[in-house]
Amino acid sequence: MKITKILEKSVSLNSNVSNSLINFSTHTVSLIALVTDQVRNGRPVIGLSFNSIGRYAQSGIIEKRMVPRLLAAKPDSLLQDNGQLSADKVLECAMQNEKPGGHGDRAHAASGLELAVWDLNAKLNDEPASVLFARHFGNKNYSPKVSVYAAGGYYYPGEQAGRLEKELSTYQNLGFNRFKMKIGGATLVEDVKRIERVLSVVGAGNKLAVDANGRLNLEQAIAYGRALQPYQLMWYEEAGDPLDFELNSLLAKEYKGALATGENLFSHQDVKNLALFGGARIDLDIFQMDPGLCYGVTEYVRMLVELESRGFDRKFCYPHSGQLMGLHAVAGLGLGGCEVYPGVFEPIGGLGDQTTIDDGVVTISGAAGFGFEEKSNLMAHFAALTE
Amino acid sequence: MKITKILEKSVSLNSNVSNSLINFSTHTVSLIALVTDQVRNGRPVIGLSFNSIGRYAQSGIIEKRMVPRLLAAKPDSLLQDNGQLSADKVLECAMQNEKPGGHGDRAHAASGLELAVWDLNAKLNDEPASVLFARHFGNKNYSPKVSVYAAGGYYYPGEQAGRLEKELSTYQNLGFNRFKMKIGGATLVEDVKRIERVLSVVGAGNKLAVDANGRLNLEQAIAYGRALQPYQLMWYEEAGDPLDFELNSLLAKEYKGALATGENLFSHQDVKNLALFGGARIDLDIFQMDPGLCYGVTEYVRMLVELESRGFDRKFCYPHSGQLMGLHAVAGLGLGGCEVYPGVFEPIGGLGDQTTIDDGVVTISGAAGFGFEEKSNLMAHFAALTE
Repeated sequence: MKITKILEKSVSLNSNVSNSLINFSTHTVSLIALVTDQVRNGRPVIGLSFNSIGRYAQSGIIEKRMVPRLLAAKPDSLLQDNGQLSADKVLECAMQNEKPGGHGDRAHAASGLELAVWDLNAKLNDEPASVLFARHFGNKNYSPKVSVYAAGGYYYPGEQAGRLEKELSTYQNLGFNRFKMKIGGATLVEDVKRIERVLSVVGAGNKLAVDANGRLNLEQAIAYGRALQPYQLMWYEEAGDPLDFELNSLLAKEYKGALATGENLFSHQDVKNLALFGGARIDLDIFQMDPGLCYGVTEYVRMLVELESRGFDRKFCYPHSGQLMGLHAVAGLGLGGCEVYPGVFEPIGGLGDQTTIDDGVVTISGAAGFGFEEKSNLMAHFAALTE
Repeated sequence: MKITKILEKSVSLNSNVSNSLINFSTHTVSLIALVTDQVRNGRPVIGLSFNSIGRYAQSGIIEKRMVPRLLAAKPDSLLQDNGQLSADKVLECAMQNEKPGGHGDRAHAASGLELAVWDLNAKLNDEPASVLFARHFGNKNYSPKVSVYAAGGYYYPGEQAGRLEKELSTYQNLGFNRFKMKIGGATLVEDVKRIERVLSVVGAGNKLAVDANGRLNLEQAIAYGRALQPYQLMWYEEAGDPLDFELNSLLAKEYKGALATGENLFSHQDVKNLALFGGARIDLDIFQMDPGLCYGVTEYVRMLVELESRGFDRKFCYPHSGQLMGLHAVAGLGLGGCEVYPGVFEPIGGLGDQTTIDDGVVTISGAAGFGFEEKSNLMAHFAALTE
């Protein structure tokens, strides 16, 4: 089999929300379609994917560097033993003549291409991508049930009193029982008030995580930590710069609860450094690397090797994502769970049209691949790309 | 004053050379022209620059993300007190709504824009960029003389016996007295033979550095280190992955000579981690971050702060680059020196047409800005961009 063409287009997110550092109104994502010479029901089988949310479309890198390498490769050089495309080999080919280090936009571009291979192969097998991940990577305890939490609590322009409580109530009504909100975009005093307003709705600290999106310096991070400590929150996320491992390790000495980080690390080398130098505590702290941003599932599994070889447990991995590919990776690899952003970041964010949250759990449907075909607003974009 | 338009185009490097990991035949670089409303001699004053060598043109990120932010900004918001553009503010604006972490292609794109501001301001002042750097950053010991070494010794397809020795002789005849060659692209035994062939020309180990381009694992890096030790080389560069700080620190315990790394680190956070966790030894090891790849000179100076606050000396900084912008940064900031790739990576690599190497030293000319106007093959491309 072979790739016949690779299509890419940039789509905008429907979001005018802000965290403590950035506004998402101009954010974009690259949709990818990997078209092959395989035919089912009279149509070519196409692997669909996108790069995950928050780091922009990667049209330039995909079109100028990676697609030419893939289309120039001998088709057989990209196959695995079973005759299907190899995600590993596709990634290696897409990364030809790229220097080591510098794991940023390139990692997001490669993610889209790598993940399309999994969607393609799962469709060829007529199985969910999660089932394919479980078999390929030897996860013997596969379950289609995924623990999810609602991520929201952004800062909105001109926010009205009561908006935040109403937002959280909406999530509860949708079936969520764990939640995450933003901090660090207001003063500490105001953020504590916002946390208390949210706790008045969700009931207990262990149902609520807070996320500073890397905004705080060490002094601020520790001050927030002291203020947060009494609430015994689910976790305290990205206090400081994601690469400031010293800050994280010093904060971990002060803050007794769980710290979470990793969504802005995109290579196994960076994760190795986090594990060695970031002060992360086994069976307490949370890792949030996103397969949709870090060169795909192939590299994500290398990250798991870095963690597990040092005693960490993948049940403490909660990928950043809030979209279908992340959901399938969590189930397939047996991770702890993942986030969902209800109503934000559409059409990329969100799950299938008929998906329900049952006491904080999503059950992956039997649809083939990542199940994009069950998400109509996203499929409208994929249809426009591939028609 | 204000920016009236920002032009970008991708140019190819004239190189079919390989290091131990990659071939450069498809490499590209982004040329940038920052056109302003300032007029001299009846023509608009234009800041010229490019992103440095080895990490590809960044047309997509520049055009889709950074240029729209800069052109949407209020012109006055980008100015410094003296009424000229502020490199710092231009960088901050170009990076609006970008998440922290992920310092790869985006850092290279931003470098081109930031460096164009320095070329522009130096032209408005009618002074070399190096002089502007020295004044702006308070370097009181400015000298236009820069210590340079010839970087070459690549692996060539179908290489003939004697080619390597001839290459090094050519560099000596050009006036170089220190040299660098590639290792790690052949077996250790073959590489040692290559080193001995080079030493037969250059005479002494302290005139020769070797560069593995991040190819080696820890075991290989230590094996190479043991084989290299007796030659007392100038330095042993990028043995392992640039982000594998553990490898670097373990190698530093085994290898007594100077280690060099940093050309594939693109943020001050990464450099902080190298300084804290990479085992670098004060007054011995070499740092090679490249202002043309790491968001420009503004961020490069933040890297120097990370190093100097931990006792390291900027005289041990030898930026990767081999081009005019790096040369001016070395002189202006008072760094140790830099590399030149004679005859490779043209038209981006290389210095002015009339520049001579005098016993390993280049004297920066009095031309305004980075002096691109004295490099005809590069100016032909800039002329095509701006005409």
